[in-house]
Amino acid sequence: MGTFPPTPRTTVRRLPQRGVYDKAQVYAILDEGFICHVGFAIDGQPYVIPTGYARSGDEIFLHGSAASRMLHTLGDGLDVCVTVTLVDGFVLSRSAFHHSINYRSVVMMGRARVLEDPAEKTAAMRCFTNHILPGRWDEVRSPSDQELRATMVLALPLREVSAKVRQGPPVEDERDLDRAAWAGVVPLHGRLGEPVPMDDLVPGVPPIDRSRFTRF
Amino acid sequence: MGTFPPTPRTTVRRLPQRGVYDKAQVYAILDEGFICHVGFAIDGQPYVIPTGYARSGDEIFLHGSAASRMLHTLGDGLDVCVTVTLVDGFVLSRSAFHHSINYRSVVMMGRARVLEDPAEKTAAMRCFTNHILPGRWDEVRSPSDQELRATMVLALPLREVSAKVRQGPPVEDERDLDRAAWAGVVPLHGRLGEPVPMDDLVPGVPPIDRSRFTRF
Repeated sequence: MGTFPPTPRTTVRRLPQRGVYDKAQVYAILDEGFICHVGFAIDGQPYVIPTGYARSGDEIFLHGSAASRMLHTLGDGLDVCVTVTLVDGFVLSRSAFHHSINYRSVVMMGRARVLEDPAEKTAAMRCFTNHILPGRWDEVRSPSDQELRATMVLALPLREVSAKVRQGPPVEDERDLDRAAWAGVVPLHGRLGEPVPMDDLVPGVPPIDRSRFTRF
Repeated sequence: MGTFPPTPRTTVRRLPQRGVYDKAQVYAILDEGFICHVGFAIDGQPYVIPTGYARSGDEIFLHGSAASRMLHTLGDGLDVCVTVTLVDGFVLSRSAFHHSINYRSVVMMGRARVLEDPAEKTAAMRCFTNHILPGRWDEVRSPSDQELRATMVLALPLREVSAKVRQGPPVEDERDLDRAAWAGVVPLHGRLGEPVPMDDLVPGVPPIDRSRFTRF
């Protein structure tokens, strides 16, 4: 699958040993996540907005209301930085200084394009729906023409991309090893709770099977 | 506790009914989260970097290596946007269009100051440590002078702040109600896994009590 060539903007400088440019690893992080933080600047003022995303091949899709200022601004070709972060655990050391967090993050830089073709938009929306819950698209009503028009979809090509990963136990100083405090890693996972059905479901509809949410 | 006066930069425009400016609600979101996404722009190029944070009164702290480019850049007074997002669940509708995510997010705008006073820095680091795990600071070795010098701490005053919240069931179109698909909300929570201790703990140190991580 290859690697992303690091650029001045995507080279990991702090703790470069945490930098990951391998496409397969980067895409595995993107496919596990589903929320990104979209950054852009207007007259020097930065904005960071959370939103959903889904990957298809070498691009990610963003979407939202056709009335969204952010999507229009980005669709006009403004530079964007999109970041996805997965938190894997708390790293507890015997010193305050060496406490840390295990995480995997991906930073994507570039310019997005607006999807105009209804078939291309529909394919992207299918990708979104099934990214959260595989197979969901085929169970639900597809978007009407009006819904398609009300939805703006952007595609960001994955060209300038890097990941940063911290895993494993804390770093400990020799001098702290005789301190009688617990140290190690406490993993953190996402977990689905009890589904809350609408009270007007068609009689006989089976409960949602949580195991279909494959990332949890 | 009052409210944050909305400014042109923090007014929620898309779906304004989701906008929250009440301080108590905003601070409750900030105190439940622990990872933020820090946005800034250099020559129009936006950067979005994940990092930890902790709130104390009407400011949040960011910290990291004194060698961090990002912290130095922000410490010089560049405009910053810091966003915290908590995901609460998946909203499944009987149409693709009305699928959504329940979330609570906070967007903070402003300029950060560098904490120079070692006592103030130490207090902020205590705040960080105990934000993740209450009481942890008193169990571990406090930062040495060298560690304090190696750590840069920024404080961002909470003045231009807004939250955006979506909760509850999906919106459904009348026409979709006879569709035999499950619809409702599948909640998502963070859950701690089995702690992984270092293999060189002082004999007799008790296991970490996960219930001390009060947010999970």
